[in-house]
Amino acid sequence: MLFFLMYTLTSSLNAAQASPSPLSSQIQKQTPVLIRNSLKSRLGYQLVEELTTKVGPRKAGTPAEKQARQWAVQKMKSLGFKNVRIEPFPVTHWKRLQESAEILKPFPQKLHVTALGGSVSTRQKKNNFVQGQVVRFASLDDLKEAPLKGFKGKIIFVDEWMTRTQDGSGYRTAVKKRSGAAEEAGKRKAVAALIRSVGTDHHRFPHTGQMYYKDKLPKVPIAALSAPDADQLNRALKLGSVSLKLSLQVQSKGQSTSGNVIGEIPGKTSEIVLIGAHLDSWDLGTGAVDDGAGVGITMAAAKMILNLKRKPLRTIRVVLFGSEEVGTVGAKAYAKNHAQALHQHFVATESDFGAEKIWRFDTRFDKTQLHLAKALQRKLQPLGILPGNNTAYGGPDITPLREKGVPVVTLKQNGWDYFDLHHTANDTFDKIKPESLAQNIAAYSAFTWMAANIKGSFRKASKKKP
Amino acid sequence: MLFFLMYTLTSSLNAAQASPSPLSSQIQKQTPVLIRNSLKSRLGYQLVEELTTKVGPRKAGTPAEKQARQWAVQKMKSLGFKNVRIEPFPVTHWKRLQESAEILKPFPQKLHVTALGGSVSTRQKKNNFVQGQVVRFASLDDLKEAPLKGFKGKIIFVDEWMTRTQDGSGYRTAVKKRSGAAEEAGKRKAVAALIRSVGTDHHRFPHTGQMYYKDKLPKVPIAALSAPDADQLNRALKLGSVSLKLSLQVQSKGQSTSGNVIGEIPGKTSEIVLIGAHLDSWDLGTGAVDDGAGVGITMAAAKMILNLKRKPLRTIRVVLFGSEEVGTVGAKAYAKNHAQALHQHFVATESDFGAEKIWRFDTRFDKTQLHLAKALQRKLQPLGILPGNNTAYGGPDITPLREKGVPVVTLKQNGWDYFDLHHTANDTFDKIKPESLAQNIAAYSAFTWMAANIKGSFRKASKKKP
Repeated sequence: MLFFLMYTLTSSLNAAQASPSPLSSQIQKQTPVLIRNSLKSRLGYQLVEELTTKVGPRKAGTPAEKQARQWAVQKMKSLGFKNVRIEPFPVTHWKRLQESAEILKPFPQKLHVTALGGSVSTRQKKNNFVQGQVVRFASLDDLKEAPLKGFKGKIIFVDEWMTRTQDGSGYRTAVKKRSGAAEEAGKRKAVAALIRSVGTDHHRFPHTGQMYYKDKLPKVPIAALSAPDADQLNRALKLGSVSLKLSLQVQSKGQSTSGNVIGEIPGKTSEIVLIGAHLDSWDLGTGAVDDGAGVGITMAAAKMILNLKRKPLRTIRVVLFGSEEVGTVGAKAYAKNHAQALHQHFVATESDFGAEKIWRFDTRFDKTQLHLAKALQRKLQPLGILPGNNTAYGGPDITPLREKGVPVVTLKQNGWDYFDLHHTANDTFDKIKPESLAQNIAAYSAFTWMAANIKGSFRKASKKKP
Repeated sequence: MLFFLMYTLTSSLNAAQASPSPLSSQIQKQTPVLIRNSLKSRLGYQLVEELTTKVGPRKAGTPAEKQARQWAVQKMKSLGFKNVRIEPFPVTHWKRLQESAEILKPFPQKLHVTALGGSVSTRQKKNNFVQGQVVRFASLDDLKEAPLKGFKGKIIFVDEWMTRTQDGSGYRTAVKKRSGAAEEAGKRKAVAALIRSVGTDHHRFPHTGQMYYKDKLPKVPIAALSAPDADQLNRALKLGSVSLKLSLQVQSKGQSTSGNVIGEIPGKTSEIVLIGAHLDSWDLGTGAVDDGAGVGITMAAAKMILNLKRKPLRTIRVVLFGSEEVGTVGAKAYAKNHAQALHQHFVATESDFGAEKIWRFDTRFDKTQLHLAKALQRKLQPLGILPGNNTAYGGPDITPLREKGVPVVTLKQNGWDYFDLHHTANDTFDKIKPESLAQNIAAYSAFTWMAANIKGSFRKASKKKP
């Protein structure tokens, strides 16, 4: 293999022409200092430790999420952030009460199972459980192609597995079964749906995650099996008909309060460089990689900049979004609250893909501004960060801003192991490597400082000249 | 992290609309059979074992490469391929004779080093070695920005490291220093250039690879240090000035003969489905992952189809290219020899990225034909193969065909560990996992069978209707 180089997937960054550096001496001097100091600091690691120890699981709309907001406010103030505040918003309440599954026939044994967020409880006649024969589909696509009749009273099992990838692309395909299996089971009048967990591990923890019902279809309760339990059920089915009992009890009523926590490093202009993470987590683990890590990375990166004791040109805003996991509710509230100021958002990004090292710098800038993307990437390259593409996602909570035209970047983390832990009880603090977290903080502090001081704009050059 | 799904990097495949299946019953029936049989077969593994044991290293233009061609011809005939032949072409000769490097001052010790393919020998006055003070650059970009004066008689050391990635994208950035360091050293009248190996490992093997000189610049000898030796040199430089002795002796004269080996499964039409790999290797290892694996994968995949005893619609052509490593010389010869028949090339692909599992299916079809890409990918999905993009590379030896408009695909292998071994003495047979190789063969046989029988075309629909 030799000629990889000769072809290139024509990275837009590579195409950018050489030009005088848009990086001021302020940037040239301070960026290496930020990188060096970040790599030596343990602050980010300590922040994740505190959040996951003192608060732990912090599901959207719960008292624990409120406690996390209070922790964040107090912490931001003590670190020296300005304009620290909570922007509250309402969120729908859903709570896991009880969940269990067992094979009744032919080989009675319990299975490890968890309800997907948003699922209804199991009800059958006067029972709070359902019982039925299991019908397996190797994939969601196979289920979609199956006839609509013949599944009444059955339990539909979608056994599709997920491909492990560095860039997380396996998730895009695999996650469709969360809502998709419930929807297809509803069309077929099944009594329940089970899925192989959306995950890449072989441990005994099922993966939860939000699902959504279609309005006009029957709502079928849905749960995820751990990968070894999906294997077990599959083996049993190969030996004949399997009868299964599933009980899911959830509480789902009324509204609760959530909120976004905001802190700033004021700049000389009204433009904003937004870096974010989400403060809420699922209920099963302590939310260390999802997304305690992002909270630690962005808060620590901003603190590294505060330590420079130099006022940036633009205001640096750290936003810890609430209620991400249940439908990016905080992100939508932020975009609504700040609708009049979106044009002042110079660039935005979120850290929400675990705690492994960043390997690529993606942007979504106007195509006339790609020389700026290249200049930024070159300063990140000593951290092992490669040039990326210009179709950056930015992060789940950045989506409403991106959709309104705010330029975004993604400091893309290595997601190879991310879906081993994601949304399971196993997402705990011990999984975070201090040296990988420090590389993230170095990259975030360097990027944020550069973006807050760079000459020019990532948007299309204004046609009106004064 | 929840909302990955909602955004998608708008995979073109996802955008393809539903339509009646272009997959004939021949495809529907035989594809799962091919997958099942491939996963059970050890043929591909045995082929790689034979090639790497009986021939071993087989550099372009050497007697060993000729021996590999003879092995391939005999093997193809015995497996039942038709029209088996060699298409010869000339290739420039370059041979490694001797190479060594040592730190002279302040800490005398030997370093592990290897000449890059194409490098000239070291010569200084009457000596066949060079001696000089080492000047380190953290990256090729840093070297490019350095002044042109002040490096006469020095040894330039480019210590840039490579980012590990699944998709191999780290190579695109890292490999530039192979020719780039020699070129920049030439401009600066340095006596030699050293690079940190283009690789992701921490073992003691340096990585070779082809480099090219610019015509108008002085030709500076260039070699790669193993990663631990680059670390060592870097540590020594931190303690003061380092004087180094480098000796590279190479033979580089005249032309030799190489060739492409071709075998076929004749179809009912003159259209060709081309699957390839390259038969040559570098001289240091036995060329197991680069590219013995590809030879085993493509030959075994075609044999699985032969075992069906059903004539495909299109002719399946297996091409084992010669002299890939020294500049895809065989690929260019093939494109030239078959220039009049390129329009009959229905689709082409090459296996040349190791022996790990395939995780993604990329295509480069006319955008009106993406429903065919989707249909093919769905049949590969049970092997864990995700939808990809429509900017497929196809493989190094496929490049001349792709550039002439032949539709190509890439069955993209996991390259996470590939650059640990690539172009080193450590590229040996023990590195190949039989079950991963079998997954490749399953995917190649399934894809090849489908492409050889699918209804329609991957090219733009002809405007002329008869």
